[in-house]
Amino acid sequence: MLHQKLINPKSIVVVGASNNVQTPGGRVLKNLLDHNFKGEIYAVNPKETEVQDIKCFQNIKNIPSVDVAIIAIAAKFTLETIKILVKEKNTKGFIIFSAGFSEKDNEGKKLEQAIVDEINAVGGTLLGPNNIGLINQNYTGVFTTPIPKLDSKGVDFISGSGATAVFIIEAAMATGLTFSSVYSVGNSAQIGVEEVLEHLDETFDKTTSSKVKLLYIESINNPKKLLKHATSLIQKGCKIAAIKAGSSTAGSRAASSHTGALANSDIAVDALFKKAGIVRCYGRNELITVASIFMHAELNGKNIAIITHAGGPAVMLTDALSKNGLNVPEIKSKKSKALLEKLYLGSSVSNPIDFLATGNAEQLETIIDYCEHKFDEIDAMVVIFGSPGLFEVYDVYEVLHKKIQTCKKPIFPILPSVVNVKNEIDYFISKGNINFPDEVLFGNALGKVVHTVKPITIKEKTTPINSEKIRTIIENSKNGYLQPQQVKQLLLYAEIPMVDEAVCTTKETCLKAAKKMGFPVVLKVVGPVHKSDVGGIILNITSEEKLAASFDVIMKIKGATSVLIQPMKKGIELFIGAKKEDKFGHLVLCGLGGIYIEVLKDTQAALTPVSKNEALEMIRNLKSYKIIQGIRNQKGINEHQFAEIIEKISNLVDVAPEIAELDLNPLLGTSEEIFAVDARIRIEKN
Amino acid sequence: MLHQKLINPKSIVVVGASNNVQTPGGRVLKNLLDHNFKGEIYAVNPKETEVQDIKCFQNIKNIPSVDVAIIAIAAKFTLETIKILVKEKNTKGFIIFSAGFSEKDNEGKKLEQAIVDEINAVGGTLLGPNNIGLINQNYTGVFTTPIPKLDSKGVDFISGSGATAVFIIEAAMATGLTFSSVYSVGNSAQIGVEEVLEHLDETFDKTTSSKVKLLYIESINNPKKLLKHATSLIQKGCKIAAIKAGSSTAGSRAASSHTGALANSDIAVDALFKKAGIVRCYGRNELITVASIFMHAELNGKNIAIITHAGGPAVMLTDALSKNGLNVPEIKSKKSKALLEKLYLGSSVSNPIDFLATGNAEQLETIIDYCEHKFDEIDAMVVIFGSPGLFEVYDVYEVLHKKIQTCKKPIFPILPSVVNVKNEIDYFISKGNINFPDEVLFGNALGKVVHTVKPITIKEKTTPINSEKIRTIIENSKNGYLQPQQVKQLLLYAEIPMVDEAVCTTKETCLKAAKKMGFPVVLKVVGPVHKSDVGGIILNITSEEKLAASFDVIMKIKGATSVLIQPMKKGIELFIGAKKEDKFGHLVLCGLGGIYIEVLKDTQAALTPVSKNEALEMIRNLKSYKIIQGIRNQKGINEHQFAEIIEKISNLVDVAPEIAELDLNPLLGTSEEIFAVDARIRIEKN
Repeated sequence: MLHQKLINPKSIVVVGASNNVQTPGGRVLKNLLDHNFKGEIYAVNPKETEVQDIKCFQNIKNIPSVDVAIIAIAAKFTLETIKILVKEKNTKGFIIFSAGFSEKDNEGKKLEQAIVDEINAVGGTLLGPNNIGLINQNYTGVFTTPIPKLDSKGVDFISGSGATAVFIIEAAMATGLTFSSVYSVGNSAQIGVEEVLEHLDETFDKTTSSKVKLLYIESINNPKKLLKHATSLIQKGCKIAAIKAGSSTAGSRAASSHTGALANSDIAVDALFKKAGIVRCYGRNELITVASIFMHAELNGKNIAIITHAGGPAVMLTDALSKNGLNVPEIKSKKSKALLEKLYLGSSVSNPIDFLATGNAEQLETIIDYCEHKFDEIDAMVVIFGSPGLFEVYDVYEVLHKKIQTCKKPIFPILPSVVNVKNEIDYFISKGNINFPDEVLFGNALGKVVHTVKPITIKEKTTPINSEKIRTIIENSKNGYLQPQQVKQLLLYAEIPMVDEAVCTTKETCLKAAKKMGFPVVLKVVGPVHKSDVGGIILNITSEEKLAASFDVIMKIKGATSVLIQPMKKGIELFIGAKKEDKFGHLVLCGLGGIYIEVLKDTQAALTPVSKNEALEMIRNLKSYKIIQGIRNQKGINEHQFAEIIEKISNLVDVAPEIAELDLNPLLGTSEEIFAVDARIRIEKN
Repeated sequence: MLHQKLINPKSIVVVGASNNVQTPGGRVLKNLLDHNFKGEIYAVNPKETEVQDIKCFQNIKNIPSVDVAIIAIAAKFTLETIKILVKEKNTKGFIIFSAGFSEKDNEGKKLEQAIVDEINAVGGTLLGPNNIGLINQNYTGVFTTPIPKLDSKGVDFISGSGATAVFIIEAAMATGLTFSSVYSVGNSAQIGVEEVLEHLDETFDKTTSSKVKLLYIESINNPKKLLKHATSLIQKGCKIAAIKAGSSTAGSRAASSHTGALANSDIAVDALFKKAGIVRCYGRNELITVASIFMHAELNGKNIAIITHAGGPAVMLTDALSKNGLNVPEIKSKKSKALLEKLYLGSSVSNPIDFLATGNAEQLETIIDYCEHKFDEIDAMVVIFGSPGLFEVYDVYEVLHKKIQTCKKPIFPILPSVVNVKNEIDYFISKGNINFPDEVLFGNALGKVVHTVKPITIKEKTTPINSEKIRTIIENSKNGYLQPQQVKQLLLYAEIPMVDEAVCTTKETCLKAAKKMGFPVVLKVVGPVHKSDVGGIILNITSEEKLAASFDVIMKIKGATSVLIQPMKKGIELFIGAKKEDKFGHLVLCGLGGIYIEVLKDTQAALTPVSKNEALEMIRNLKSYKIIQGIRNQKGINEHQFAEIIEKISNLVDVAPEIAELDLNPLLGTSEEIFAVDARIRIEKN
């Protein structure tokens, strides 16, 4: 938790305060003086006696005790200053603007650590260094402009980049989005995005806290903390949108398995956000649009009424909503007929509800009332109302304002005439409303919001597995790929259904096994990793003679140590994989096998622990899901059983986190049963 | 072509002129008076003698001859007025703002037609009715505000919706995008979007005409005209971006064939835009961003240098560019080392080139010079430069302005600080520059622009087909599905390779055919359309006995008229289809067969005529293209032969436009040969 003194200080010192507001130390002092801070402000500057009309101390030693220190001096002077503040001034909150620490070189890193050690020793909190500071309801401790409109119901914004925070605030101001707090974490020496989120979670108050959190993240240092507190906040009724920049740089790593090639850290980020219920955004504009949607009431369904006085934007919005899986349902009833009669001739109420260029405020009010009270099929309204510039539209926007306040269904205003009725839009915004200037950006963002699933609140019971036996195998194994016999045992203990199989080193044992299984059988090479690439899989062996010949072929392959024999089975090829993804834990992937993963990359991923319900959702989100359901003359596969196996694999890697990569590829699935035909497991112990 | 008098009039009358600038007649007069029109302006209003300080005529009969009439009176008075103008005043250009015509009711439609007839009779041109008017370099004949910044090098914008045109102009103004002309076509009674584009094509002058055209279209009445003139303009060096609204409403129609279900009018729009080289946009913001990219020099490649003083936006832009198939290549050479030495410690030149928050104008100039002259691998630059608000950045933007003017490689400015340095951005824009405020919207739009292929200039030689014989079959056929024998003949004449086949009505002829072909064979029912749904396909028949039994099974199917026999062949299933799409002509589709079209909808479409090169591009754009290339142990198929068959199908439907739907499904392809195994053709004569 962040120290309470940092959040709500009674006194603040600016170290490096200046009369020059073009410097960070000068500008932050001006910001503090100009805005709403109610406590004491001290300035420190060895060269001044008065700065911006307040008394200036030449030496930090001379100031009284102080809750928060905002430090804007060269890096080399910071440690000494902090020692004094910590030891003599009872300071608990620190904001260090200065650059030249861990982002610069190793020496800077050491200095940064020394500062953290000092602050940790007294239980203090540090934001930065190399940040722009902190804005909240109590004070504006940043050296940048503009200071956004502050409102306890506005968004809490945590940013891993100071400049990006400024640009987002600037872009948000024109739309009316307000802020409750802005945290810039800079180098995250002590406090990163995750820790601020943790703080917001632990101090969350249902009545006074903001319900919307925005994150701009460049690196996730503690994914589990992020997941925990994002999930917790969302379960408490909050909404979170986040940009995780750097999604492309990770790329696809060279890896020795399918799962390895399919999973990467960006997929892990996706999976984390999905599990928590965070809406993932990719740009500033999108983040602001999603945040603005969050500031409205939640939709209870996907049916949208579009109310407009201009056809074009309504058509484009209809397209965008449809593409994003939302509906603009036709409205056709006695009630809609009654509404039509209250509008000018030529209007349309079938949705979009078009009340023409001549439509007025009174008509808008009537339409909204119908959508709110009479059209039960409607879940939300979008009102598009601009102006060709002939007259003012204050009355229309006043109706809109009033209805947004009073209606239970959310009303989203799209006011595109940012030039013609700029004054009206500014006035509308000044009353606490938000404008979405572009209908298509809005439609795309609304789709994202509606399709983001909330985290499952109750941890479902997982199938128990033979943990002790699994641990014994893992502890007795070395790094690298496990032998087929070990793989078989692990899957057995994890209760994964497997095709019957035997590993043989002689032709005789192989023949014996085949007789027991019954022909036809399959032979596979043991040794080489990519069996099919070396011709190490021989299918549909129907006789003893063919078996003997095939055995010889396989044992001649380079690296072959033995032969694996299985009965020849039929079914749809499926795939399940797991991969350890650094600090994120394990990713579990599923999909159809063969070309579906190799060519079409049609897989779904989730972070462990994966419940059966999550697994079912993964399966149903596959592009090739129709094949699992069954198409035309081909029966599908038992998706519940598929989901259970996914859950069991999740349980397995949770018990055996040393599993770096695991492939069940393929499993064969029918409408009755699913079993693994081939499996590989790679162990990586630290 | 639009009448020259409408484009460049010597005199204009406003019928319905008023002192009240809240009316269309009042506002258009004010716009004309306030802006750059150099000719005579007359006002007509029966109730006034002077309007806005100019003389007002009470009767249209009293005005002198006039080139253009702008009409803002009730619909019922318009025809009479137009008759006088046409007959007595030698007027050739008409703009009718009034509503109440074809968009209202049948009576209005008749009135509209009567007006068109009058104007046609004298070779005049009508814009509207029910539009906002026309803006060009000569006059501002619109009743709306704002009037955008006019510039002969700005964009020519044709809009099917007046309100949408206003909203686009408003949104464009803040970015610096300028306009050469704005045409609002309203009801398109005489002149639609297509006709204005035709005019721009026919009057195009390489040195004086604008090279950028924007279209907002709600319905395409003449797709062939649109295709012709868009292609022609782009071949002359223009760039075109367009919104076709209403993309979702078309939906997927109920249809009796695969092609029918896969093709729809929106796919036809896509295909038309692709063939012409038009960049398709879906929203106002996107259209403006694409237009703004068009205003810069063209990229010669896909390698982008990102120059920034703030990390965050550069990372988000890198992500967006990568996702859109563009590169942000690492820059690493002696030259880049030399550049690094000229920057502050901690800067990075490896791309993104980050010259830190403290970076200055001089350093920016150096970096741009390196990218322009020394980094040969770089094709374009993006400069991201905002401000935390401490000081002014005029000097930086001055460097940017100077370099945009002089560099050969395009430089795209992303200036995100729309609040902190608003004045600097306004000044930058006032010098003729454009700003992209959001890096991700820019990155997505740049991807679209770069990936839009220019139309092929030379119509390639098409394979000659037996046109006369094809025409004979078509002329002798009835509406509906052709019989197998007719299908076979048509494909034969179209030179489509087919699997050997015979249609048999008796078991004896069937046996005879099988012996000739050699076992195994396939039997298919003739009669029912969806053969496999009724169990009408029996594969892999290996003996005479099985053949006899299978024959009986098939002939018992409801609707069976005979049996089609083919040798059993192997290969990858492919699909080619053609469908008549109303006024667009024929769409030709291709893809892999089976689940690829049924489940994954992985098809590509093009409008006829489809050249072999276009067909190859279609094939290579398939998501499943890797299978055509060959994966792992499976050989691919001969894509050149596949492309040739697509071209031949295009030739066939061009010769036989009565073909409403055609399916080759499947074709079987190997690395050596491709042949059609099953085909259906439906004829629809008017």
